Formats: sequence, C-alpha cells, structure tokens
Amino acid sequence: MDYMIGVDLGTTSTKAVLYDDNCNVLGYANKLYPLYQDKPDMAEEDPNEIFDAVVDALTEVVRKADLQTGKLRGVSFSAAMHSLIGLDKNHQPITRVITWADNRAEKYADEYKKNGIGFELYKKTGTPTHPMSPLYKLLWLKNEHRDIYDDAAYWVGIKEYIFWRLFGVLKEEYSIASATGLFNIFNLDWDEQALEVTGVKREQLPELVDPLAQVTGMHDEYAKVIGIPTDTPFIMGASDGTLSNLGVNAIKPGVVAVTIGTSGAVRVVTDKPTIDPKGRVFCYALTKDKWVVGGPVNNGGIVFRWVRDQLFAPEKVTADMMNMDSYDLLTQIAKEIPAGSDGLLFHPFLGGERAPIWDANARGSFFGLTRNHTRAHMVRAALEGIVYNLYTVMLALEEVVGKPKEIMATGGFARSELWRQMLADIFESPVTIPDAFESGCLAAVVLAMKSIGTIDDLSEIEKFIGKTNTYQPNPDNFPVYRELVPIYIRLSRQLQTEYANIANFQRKFGNN
Amino acid sequence: MDYMIGVDLGTTSTKAVLYDDNCNVLGYANKLYPLYQDKPDMAEEDPNEIFDAVVDALTEVVRKADLQTGKLRGVSFSAAMHSLIGLDKNHQPITRVITWADNRAEKYADEYKKNGIGFELYKKTGTPTHPMSPLYKLLWLKNEHRDIYDDAAYWVGIKEYIFWRLFGVLKEEYSIASATGLFNIFNLDWDEQALEVTGVKREQLPELVDPLAQVTGMHDEYAKVIGIPTDTPFIMGASDGTLSNLGVNAIKPGVVAVTIGTSGAVRVVTDKPTIDPKGRVFCYALTKDKWVVGGPVNNGGIVFRWVRDQLFAPEKVTADMMNMDSYDLLTQIAKEIPAGSDGLLFHPFLGGERAPIWDANARGSFFGLTRNHTRAHMVRAALEGIVYNLYTVMLALEEVVGKPKEIMATGGFARSELWRQMLADIFESPVTIPDAFESGCLAAVVLAMKSIGTIDDLSEIEKFIGKTNTYQPNPDNFPVYRELVPIYIRLSRQLQTEYANIANFQRKFGNN
Ligand SMILES: Nc1ncnc2c1ncn2[C@@H]1O[C@H](COP(=O)(O)OP(=O)(O)OP(=O)(O)O)[C@@H](O)[C@H]1O
Ligand SMILES: Nc1ncnc2c1ncn2[C@@H]1O[C@H](COP(=O)(O)OP(=O)(O)O)[C@@H](O)[C@H]1O
Repeated sequence: MDYMIGVDLGTTSTKAVLYDDNCNVLGYANKLYPLYQDKPDMAEEDPNEIFDAVVDALTEVVRKADLQTGKLRGVSFSAAMHSLIGLDKNHQPITRVITWADNRAEKYADEYKKNGIGFELYKKTGTPTHPMSPLYKLLWLKNEHRDIYDDAAYWVGIKEYIFWRLFGVLKEEYSIASATGLFNIFNLDWDEQALEVTGVKREQLPELVDPLAQVTGMHDEYAKVIGIPTDTPFIMGASDGTLSNLGVNAIKPGVVAVTIGTSGAVRVVTDKPTIDPKGRVFCYALTKDKWVVGGPVNNGGIVFRWVRDQLFAPEKVTADMMNMDSYDLLTQIAKEIPAGSDGLLFHPFLGGERAPIWDANARGSFFGLTRNHTRAHMVRAALEGIVYNLYTVMLALEEVVGKPKEIMATGGFARSELWRQMLADIFESPVTIPDAFESGCLAAVVLAMKSIGTIDDLSEIEKFIGKTNTYQPNPDNFPVYRELVPIYIRLSRQLQTEYANIANFQRKFGNN
Repeated sequence: MDYMIGVDLGTTSTKAVLYDDNCNVLGYANKLYPLYQDKPDMAEEDPNEIFDAVVDALTEVVRKADLQTGKLRGVSFSAAMHSLIGLDKNHQPITRVITWADNRAEKYADEYKKNGIGFELYKKTGTPTHPMSPLYKLLWLKNEHRDIYDDAAYWVGIKEYIFWRLFGVLKEEYSIASATGLFNIFNLDWDEQALEVTGVKREQLPELVDPLAQVTGMHDEYAKVIGIPTDTPFIMGASDGTLSNLGVNAIKPGVVAVTIGTSGAVRVVTDKPTIDPKGRVFCYALTKDKWVVGGPVNNGGIVFRWVRDQLFAPEKVTADMMNMDSYDLLTQIAKEIPAGSDGLLFHPFLGGERAPIWDANARGSFFGLTRNHTRAHMVRAALEGIVYNLYTVMLALEEVVGKPKEIMATGGFARSELWRQMLADIFESPVTIPDAFESGCLAAVVLAMKSIGTIDDLSEIEKFIGKTNTYQPNPDNFPVYRELVPIYIRLSRQLQTEYANIANFQRKFGNN
C-alpha cells in the first residue's frame, strides 16, 4: 500500500491526514498554536510555532504508515490565505505571521477605496480592497513600521516559510500568490502597479510556480525527525479558500460551495479570471487554469456562538448536564419557531462584514420585535440572519457568474439538520452535504494525485468524497423568505450611515 | 376629624384612598377586574364589574373612617380616558367598556389621518387621530356593528356610567369629555363636526359640567351598603392623565411630568388650549381653565417586563429565591454597564407607538451589536431606549410649549434609582420624585378640596405631597447621550418604511 499526506495550515492549528491510494483516512494529527491579539485589531501567529506544528503533525501521521513495504508518494498543502511574514537577508523572520484576521491596515484599505486605486488594483489582482490583503499590510508597515519595512529582504506567506525551512527554496504558487493583492490573475505574474505602490521589488518575493509543482530534497535533519526519505515529493498545494471548493467537488461551473465554520464563504469555480464590476467578490487562482470566485463573510458560526453564550448561557449549562451538544439543544429550540421567526429579522454583522457589503462598521441588529417574540425567536432569527447574509453574497456572485445549478454545503454549521434545511429553503435550491472529513486535506491530496499523475482530472475527487446527503427546499417556506429577504437587504442598505455613526461612537467611548 | 376619599378608576383595578383633612392616608382599597382581550386588538372591561369594584372599594375604606364623630366631606374621582360604553334607552349597557387600549378602530383613524379630517378635528378637539379615541370607536361601530350603533340611546364613558348608577344623573365633566375626540376644547362644548361625522346627537351625550361640579342624592341602596349619608358630595373629578400632573404638583407652566408605569407619558399644564401644528401631542382639559398638553407612549414598563420575562427568565427565578424584586435585580445588572451601553441602541416599540411617532406599525429593535455586547448590555440598552423615547416626546412638546424648567417623575419605574438617574442624564435636567402614594387619588381629592372650598388654589397640593427627592444630572454622561440620541432619532425615522413592511408581514404570516 502506498500513502499520501494532506496538510492544512490553518489559523488556529495545523492538521495532517494520512491517506491510502484510494483516499481512505489512515491517520490524523492536529497541532494547535496561539493567535496573538495583544492589541486591538491585531491577529498574529508565531512562524516557528507553526513550523514546529507542521513537523510534529507530519511525524505523528507518518508513524501510522508502514514505509518499509509502502511508499509515501507525496505530501501536499492547503494554507490560510493573506498571511504576511517579513524575512531578513538570512531568511530569518523579523515579523510574526500577520494573518488574514489582522485589521491594522484598515486605514490604508480605506484610503485606496476612496481614491479609486484600490478598485484599479482589484480589477487586476482579484483581491478585494480590505486590510486582510497583504498589499495593505505592506502599506501599513511602510508607513507605520518603517524599520521593519526597511529591514525586510523578503516578503512571504506562511506556506512559503514552511517550504523555505524544510527545503531551503523560496517558492510561491499561484493560488496563495493570488490572494496577496500583489499578483495579476490574468497574466499569472506579480503586478507592476501593486509592486510600485508598496515599494516591494520582485527580488523580495518568492519565485512563482504552479500549485502542482513538486519540491524535493528536504534538509536531512527534518527528514530524519519526520521519518521520510529526503526525496519524498512535496507538492506546493493551494489556498484553503480555493481548495474548499475542490474538497466538496464544487469545481464544475455553476456548483456553488457554501461554507459556514467560524466565518463563512460562498464560492464557485470558473475557468477564467472573473472580476465583479462592483468589487464585491474575490477571484483567486486554484490552479493555473481554474479560478475561484466568491465572497467571504466574517459572521458565520461565531455569531451563533455569541447567541449561545449571551442569550442562552443557562441552556448551555443544561446541555452540558445532559451531555448534549449545546448547539444541538439550541437548534432544537429554534426548530419550534416557524420559518421567518414571526417577523423578527437579525443582521449578523457582529464583527463588521466583508462580502457582500464590505463594511467594517456594520453592526448586528434585531429588528421587528413585538411583545410576542420570545428568546426562542431570537435564536431562530439569528440562524436565519446568518443564512440571509450568505444568500445575499450568492446574489452578488450570481450577477458575476450566473445562476447556480447546485449547492454544496460544508463547515461546522452543516452538522445541524435545521440549518441545512434553512439553507435549502432560503436559497430555494437543493443543498448537498458531503460526509467528508477534513475536506481541505483531501483536496490538497487530490492536487498531489494530479501532480504525480495518478489521476487525470481534479473532478475525480468525486469518487473519494463518499456519501452525501441532499436536502430539498420546502415550498411552504418560500413565501415567507421571499418577503423577508428584501426587507433584510433594504435594511442593511438603509442602515449604512448609522453603522458608521454607531461604530464611531463605539470607538470613541466604548470598549467595543 | 373629617375625611375625604379619592377614587381612581383604572384599567386593571379601582383604587380608593381615605384621607384626613391634611391628606394623610388613612385607608386604602384596591379592587381588580379582568380586561377582556378575546380577539386581536380588543381590550374591553365589564361596566358592572367596575361598578361593583367601586362600591366595594368605597365600602372598604369608609369602614376605616369614624363617621360618628367625623364627616365625609367629599368623594372625588380620577378615571382612565377614552373609554366608551353604549347604553340603551333604559340606560342599560349594550356594550362592554371599550378601553383606550382597544385598537379595533385603527382602520378609521388611518382613513381620517389620510384624508386630513383627522387633523382638522384634532385642531379643535386636542385628541390625536388614533383608535384610542372614542370618535374613531364610534366610526368603527357605525360601520362594522350597525345594530349596536343603532340601538344605543346614549354614549358614555366609565365614570359617567358609575355616576349614573349611583345617582341616576348623566353628566360628563370637561376633562374626560376632552379625551373623547368629540369635544371642542376652545369653547368647552361638543364639536359640531365631530357629532356630524359620527352621527351622534347631543341628546345621546351626557350633560357637560365642570370637573369641580358636585353631585348628591345617592340612591339609598348604595348609600346604605357603602355606609355614607345620601347627601355626601361626590365631585365629578377628572381624567387620570391630567390628574397625574396635579398629583406630582406639575401644574405650573414649564414643570413637566414624566410618568412611566406600564405605559408612559410626558405632560405639561398650560393655561390655554394648545395645539401642535404637527399633531404629535394631545391637549386635554384638567379644569375649565387648565389644560394638559403631552404625549402618551405605549412602551413604558411593559417593555422592561418583556426584557425580564424573555431575556432574564432565569434571573427572575433567582430574584424570587432571594426574595428580591426581580426589577431591582435587573437594574442592578444594568448599573454595571456604562452609560450608552457601549453603543447598543434599543428602540422600545414592541407595541407600536403613540407619541411622538404615532405609528402602530413601529417595532422594537436592538442596533449596534458587536461580539463584546453581553445580555447585561441588552437590559441597560432597553432601559435607555425607553427613556430616549420619552425624551423625544419631550422634544416634540418643547416645540409646542417651550423649554421645560423642571421635571417631576412618577410611576412604577420611578422606584429604581438607576432609572431616575438615567432620566436626569438623558433629559439633562434635575428630576424630582415625590414619595407620594397613589398620586391620582390624591389629585382627585385636591380637586374636591377646591370644589368644597377648603383650598383656594390647586397648587396648594404642594404641601400635601410630602417628601421629594431630586436627582442631579451627571455631566460625565452628557457626551455619551448627546451622541446617541440623534442616532436613535434618525434610526426611528429611517426605519419607518420597513416598520410598515415587517408589520404587514407579521399580520400576514405571524401570530404577532
Ligand atoms: N423596582 C423597580 N425598578 C424599576 N422598574 C420597576 C420597578 N418596579 C416596577 N417597575 C416598572 O414599572 C412597571 C409598572 O409600573 P406601575 O406599577 O406604575 O404599573 P401600572 O400601575 O400597571 O401602570 P399604569 O399606571 O400605566 O397602568 C413595571 O412594568 C416595571 O417595568
Ligand atoms: N451541532 C451544531 N449545530 C449547528 N451549528 C454548529 C454545530 N456545531 C458547531 N456549529 C457551528 O459551527 C461553528 C464552528 O464551525 P467549524 O467549521 O468547526 O469551525 P472553524 O471554522 O473554526 O473550523 C460554531 O461556531 C457553531 O456556530
């Protein structure tokens, strides 16, 4: 038996999954590391802690493989997008990993939104004008941390740093590059204007390669620790955002992947770079001839968590005593309330919002309260609000890439029956949920299979995904949601000015 | 020692208080009766149940008086406004008491708002165009219950019915009359146009008298039961809405009374009838030369009750176990949150709203939510929202009668320290709270004292009110509330269209 390993470099942990030739899971490791948030808007990680996590995770799963009789045919990667690390001329980190969740560059994104340069760049890079983008992080460092900016000989992301440590090569594949804001998705090269505005030189950036590119020749010391030959092919892999579509087989045109984990996203694969004239959606490369177009939302399951912790703290204790998942208990409560929550609407923007409104000032609200509304209405309204928000992302996406044919759903939220049905009802479309486990790692391994030639086409992932469940929309609920969605959308437009005002108030007076 | 009795005919109970000459309280009785709400928007009472309650309450307090050595110098009344009862030609009720809270005439108020006749009438009657007004109740009966309308020989309110039962006279004083929508507050007579549109004839309405007018000659049977001479003077009294200003000595120009009980109001006394060119405030007669101008709000303490029952059900149980008032426990929680609730705004329109927006479709909302907001923020935001709403009523009132000089506060809400301070801070004005007990009954008795000549001027009530506490506004909180109030006001304006849309949805689909 031969083996493959998929590694997912996530924001809170690195996961590694060991597969056999048929993508059956043989082993799993998950290594956590902290997110440093000592200052408001900061969200950093330690590059060396992540490197250690990768080596540990690989070591752990390799131990489950019998490499005497079998062969490790490849190791492939999925990685969080938008990370930025400055390296000195000896390739030593002089910053931590500044992650996608870091908002300290907001001022620069705002400025570029206003002066129009942000949109000009977006049209070439596919990366929305937002502080998550390394382009704006570079502008922030250049203006506010000039010493670091001047000392940096190289700018890389976390995956590039891991490859550097393991192999001593500085390479960046198209997928991760396409989320930096510095990469032109039309000609697959760094963008001259982006380099110019940030003052970054080509020599400071890694060599661009195909996501299917292989690297071999691991430093002896690590190969020994991990327990694999130094010539084991490591496949560059791609970004988690794009691989999550592949991971649920949402790679045919018109197949939309809706993900709700802590945050959420709606994404679809296209066969050419696609730009939104209104700038609401991103376009990142999956491979050199497949692009993923979509919108990321801040307010996914994290909002459900807030509702649980704030409005249902006692029920959480009850669930614990019942040895029951507290989210399950809450969805059971929500199920007793009719679709539409008797006219209670919730806007889930507790953490500002990215797609589709791209407004860091957006705030959450309950609207339509009467004395007949109960706390149970509030939890159902919250779940519906999260879905309305994703639905509006899909409406934006539709304008750019056309009507979806099929919806695949993933993420922690998809564990709930109620939520799956709600997704089908609000989207008015069948929703398919794969049982798949760690679909990011699986997708990385499928890239590797293509790279080493065991499959011809990425769509062959279908046979590795296994069982799926499909939920049909319930026509009884259409009239309800068809009336509420337009109110939901109009409200978030009308409230825009007051979002800015209340956010200003909160910055000035609050600890919010 | 001589005695006086004040009776308050309320929506949920009738209260009677026995006083000595110096308005010291000697006895108290409270008789409850049900509110019938079998249909949506209906809110009725049984006139005979109320009559029995009045007799019972009087009987009970009279027993505490020593009428061998002392004399009962007078009994006087406060009564809920806007009630309507149809009597047949034998003065038998053919309807229940249709109370102020009954909304079934909404369609007719709406129609008259749109066609402008409502405003024309308001400018003469001082009664806002709203289903609470007997004028619109009559239009509703005329159009939808023609049999009742045709059978009615007389139209009266609850106080008139009580006097009829006790004395066999049909009299209505200016104060209650001025809240019927049928009464011209400028010439103190029924309004011709109002009679015309409702088709009601003068002969169908009681004789108009001064609130200080006395009636004697009680039917023997009741005088016997109650235990008083038949010649005891009964003073007509006035409406609870206008007496509540007298009851806290808010009768000098510029002294504003803010009341929050289940519902709420902001009121000021003027020495001439005063009309709002924007139609937002009422003007009712207190006596024949004093008028009360103000705005009633639906959403007072009842909103706090909703917050307690829905969001703080577990804490209510905790308070019960501690033998502590649950509202006290909640205000203690709210106190820990800074003024302004860290930028969480609450619009309290859970039951539509009367003043200042007069919009039955208005709905409640929480706005500005972030993940840092807790349930404790929600209770403080709710209390602040109730006060913002009253403050906007005062702003409307200010346009009509000028800046307030002093604020007196009453109602169940005034039991809370936190809320008194909040009122002072948001209104940016000292707030005085009398310790007085059942100020409606006290005010009725002070009317009686003027009627029988023991005082010259109503302002002498000051010496009977006793101890007061004054709360100074805290300037630390001004900047916070000065930023939030304009956002609060703009939001309720901007949301107007969506209030209508969500209310329509709720009528169509919900059980709300
Ligand atoms: N200790 C307290 N602290 C704060 N608020 C309180 C407290 N006690 C009662 N309240 C508020 O006052 C309201 C009741 O007020 P009140 O007793 O004046 O009612 P009511 O007589 O039914 O009202 P109304 O005069 O409008 O008919 C409650 O709903 C609650 O919101
Ligand atoms: N049983 C469940 N029912 C509904 N929602 C759930 C359930 N379990 C978890 N969730 C939601 O999923 C979120 C976590 O999703 P997950 O995909 O595990 O997170 P991450 O994005 O951090 O990987 C939680 O915040 C919660 O809102």
